[in-house]
Amino acid sequence: MERNLTVAQAQDAILNEVSPLAAQTVAVADAQGRILAEDVLSTRMLPPADCSAMDGYAIHSAASQSASADVPVSMRVALEVAAGGSADCPLQPGDAARIFTGAPVPPGADSVVMQEHVEADGEWVRILKPAPRGNNIRNAGEEMHVGDRVLARGACISAPVIGLLASLGRTLVSVVRRPRVAILSSGDELVEPDGSVEGGRIVASNSYTLSALCREVGAEPIYFGISKDCPEELEAHMRSGLSADCIVTSAGVSVGDHDHVKGVIEKLGCEIRFWGVQMKPGHPMVFGRFDRGPAPGAAGPFVFGLPGNPVSAAVTFEQFVRPALRKMSGFVTHFRPTIQARLRTALRKQPGRLNFIRVCLEIEDGEIWASSTGNQSSGVFRSMSEAQGLLVFPGADSELAEGSDVTVQVIDEGFFAGHERGFEGV
Amino acid sequence: MERNLTVAQAQDAILNEVSPLAAQTVAVADAQGRILAEDVLSTRMLPPADCSAMDGYAIHSAASQSASADVPVSMRVALEVAAGGSADCPLQPGDAARIFTGAPVPPGADSVVMQEHVEADGEWVRILKPAPRGNNIRNAGEEMHVGDRVLARGACISAPVIGLLASLGRTLVSVVRRPRVAILSSGDELVEPDGSVEGGRIVASNSYTLSALCREVGAEPIYFGISKDCPEELEAHMRSGLSADCIVTSAGVSVGDHDHVKGVIEKLGCEIRFWGVQMKPGHPMVFGRFDRGPAPGAAGPFVFGLPGNPVSAAVTFEQFVRPALRKMSGFVTHFRPTIQARLRTALRKQPGRLNFIRVCLEIEDGEIWASSTGNQSSGVFRSMSEAQGLLVFPGADSELAEGSDVTVQVIDEGFFAGHERGFEGV
Repeated sequence: MERNLTVAQAQDAILNEVSPLAAQTVAVADAQGRILAEDVLSTRMLPPADCSAMDGYAIHSAASQSASADVPVSMRVALEVAAGGSADCPLQPGDAARIFTGAPVPPGADSVVMQEHVEADGEWVRILKPAPRGNNIRNAGEEMHVGDRVLARGACISAPVIGLLASLGRTLVSVVRRPRVAILSSGDELVEPDGSVEGGRIVASNSYTLSALCREVGAEPIYFGISKDCPEELEAHMRSGLSADCIVTSAGVSVGDHDHVKGVIEKLGCEIRFWGVQMKPGHPMVFGRFDRGPAPGAAGPFVFGLPGNPVSAAVTFEQFVRPALRKMSGFVTHFRPTIQARLRTALRKQPGRLNFIRVCLEIEDGEIWASSTGNQSSGVFRSMSEAQGLLVFPGADSELAEGSDVTVQVIDEGFFAGHERGFEGV
Repeated sequence: MERNLTVAQAQDAILNEVSPLAAQTVAVADAQGRILAEDVLSTRMLPPADCSAMDGYAIHSAASQSASADVPVSMRVALEVAAGGSADCPLQPGDAARIFTGAPVPPGADSVVMQEHVEADGEWVRILKPAPRGNNIRNAGEEMHVGDRVLARGACISAPVIGLLASLGRTLVSVVRRPRVAILSSGDELVEPDGSVEGGRIVASNSYTLSALCREVGAEPIYFGISKDCPEELEAHMRSGLSADCIVTSAGVSVGDHDHVKGVIEKLGCEIRFWGVQMKPGHPMVFGRFDRGPAPGAAGPFVFGLPGNPVSAAVTFEQFVRPALRKMSGFVTHFRPTIQARLRTALRKQPGRLNFIRVCLEIEDGEIWASSTGNQSSGVFRSMSEAQGLLVFPGADSELAEGSDVTVQVIDEGFFAGHERGFEGV
């Protein structure tokens, strides 16, 4: 067991340990936002035949070469092809076929004239200028041929990817499994949100924050409730989480007489990789892995023992659990975005541990300004609920001056959304 | 009915028309990512009493004033208070109380000394330096008092906000209703993904793309299947969508003989606000509103008649439907983020309509480069599924030079996620 790692060492230790989960087959609609675990090869040619890109008239281009507005070429509308129709009947030179977007071009025709560019007159149509060969025709296979690799393993399944899979007739797809995360909390003082807080009890709100953070990153939280602060109950509680991919606990990881988490997980076969990270909030944090899970031969879940303080629990989840869950879900980008901002009001601290300061972000004349959300005590969760970012106050520093350039980890994904369209729109 | 608006005019017309939906009460766990429709006032004082921020010993600070490492002050550990315990028994001056994080400070004590800073010895503890008053004590009400407004109407319900609501004992919360979006598609050539594509049929993939785009923005798609290209079937189909907040159709909005959407919606009482936007892909697009819904007196749904081309349908959804759904959901940021990038390879077009070019984005030495995803024909959907952004090629321009600065609308939310942690981590 290593002790007192830096944030970077702790993140590296965790990310070296975890790997993407196995693949599973799911309905395409359930695959949204997940990572593709197969190369998708096309089983179709698209378009399936040469087809019209416009509503108009399919013609032999040669027959239009003398056309002009003064001396139009008149053609008989000999047939009509709708989208989904068939084009078995060949078009005779000098005839035209009424044709609609997506409809197959009849044999013989090699050009489509837009309906806006002709004069229709009953069974006849007047062509007003020469139509080049291939005009407004989408060639068979222009989008894909049978066997083309249209999607690569590792791609994220966006909304357009779902449409593409549908267009190939796929209803099922192989994706990386979502991590199942057992959420445990412990503390004699804790109650559920609908419980009584008489006598100084408080709500086990960490479980709700941590479950929501799991859902935000696409993992599946499984809540196992509150355990009392005694080794026996904690052990039974912990055993219930062993079938998950990850166990996330909060509280009980410090050095107090009531801090039983480390002892219990070691007894259950967890190898603790490290304890303690040089950061504030969040110093007393444990990371380890159970040597066996419920399946014979397989390794057990990872365990993240987070501090009990609500701010510390949320901040350590952001730094350590979230990147691990991203990697387990198959993403290659494991981290929150960071931005450079200017500091609204000076900050001070003791040199030593890296601090994460909860901040709001404002854009003024194209510059981003970061301001503390107020009381930075790790007991004050309100300032976490208002934070759009975590400002990185490096360990060695003791002061960040007003107006200085700072790095902020953006935890509010909505920060990037636009108040304005961002372009002229003409 | 206005015709041929610019992108900006069309977006403004839509956003002036739509407004946030009504509030509804949902379980807190279902409120994630939605917009709060009430001011949340605290019903609790937090912390509920003066309590310890550390594991340690609560003492009378005055009794520690002479303490030093050479001449420690020994105090008898007269009582113990755990988190969730009660602190009714007053502490006598000169005594200490063993105390744990979150536990109430006993009457009389005014300072907590960290356990790491004392020498414990059976029933006695030696204090090695003077402890200031208020040391390691979180004051009652430091986080909130009863009646404090802890969350404001309009806030987005992030994971920490869910934790904060839980800590207040809230299990239900009032949020802006999610838009219900009826998804319709029409075309004689269309089949569902599990249908046969014999004879040139193609899958109605637009419905799957558009449903997924709805889910991505937090709206609820309701898929009504495929209608044939005839006014009677289209009318029955459209009627089924009238109970939604929005109807999104694809295809049938151009000027072809099979383009019945405009006629049908007007017959059903839709006032068409505009038809046609000066953009490519996506010109033939209709926006309107039904003058009555299923409820007496209430206005009916908005209708977005999108082009049938898969690329055009997705791009017009992005520009027009998505901002409308964001506003209906209560967000004040309606638009996708835009970034400035440099263009990898020159682009050309006819001056006239604004073009949206599907691009990939790469970061090189801190600069973002945008490259076309290939064939920009609006028939080629593959290039949409690979696009991370839509490059804005202004209407008046005919060329964007290699290396020039361009504006890109980011449609892949994952673009901002970090490959690296983005700070040193020490």
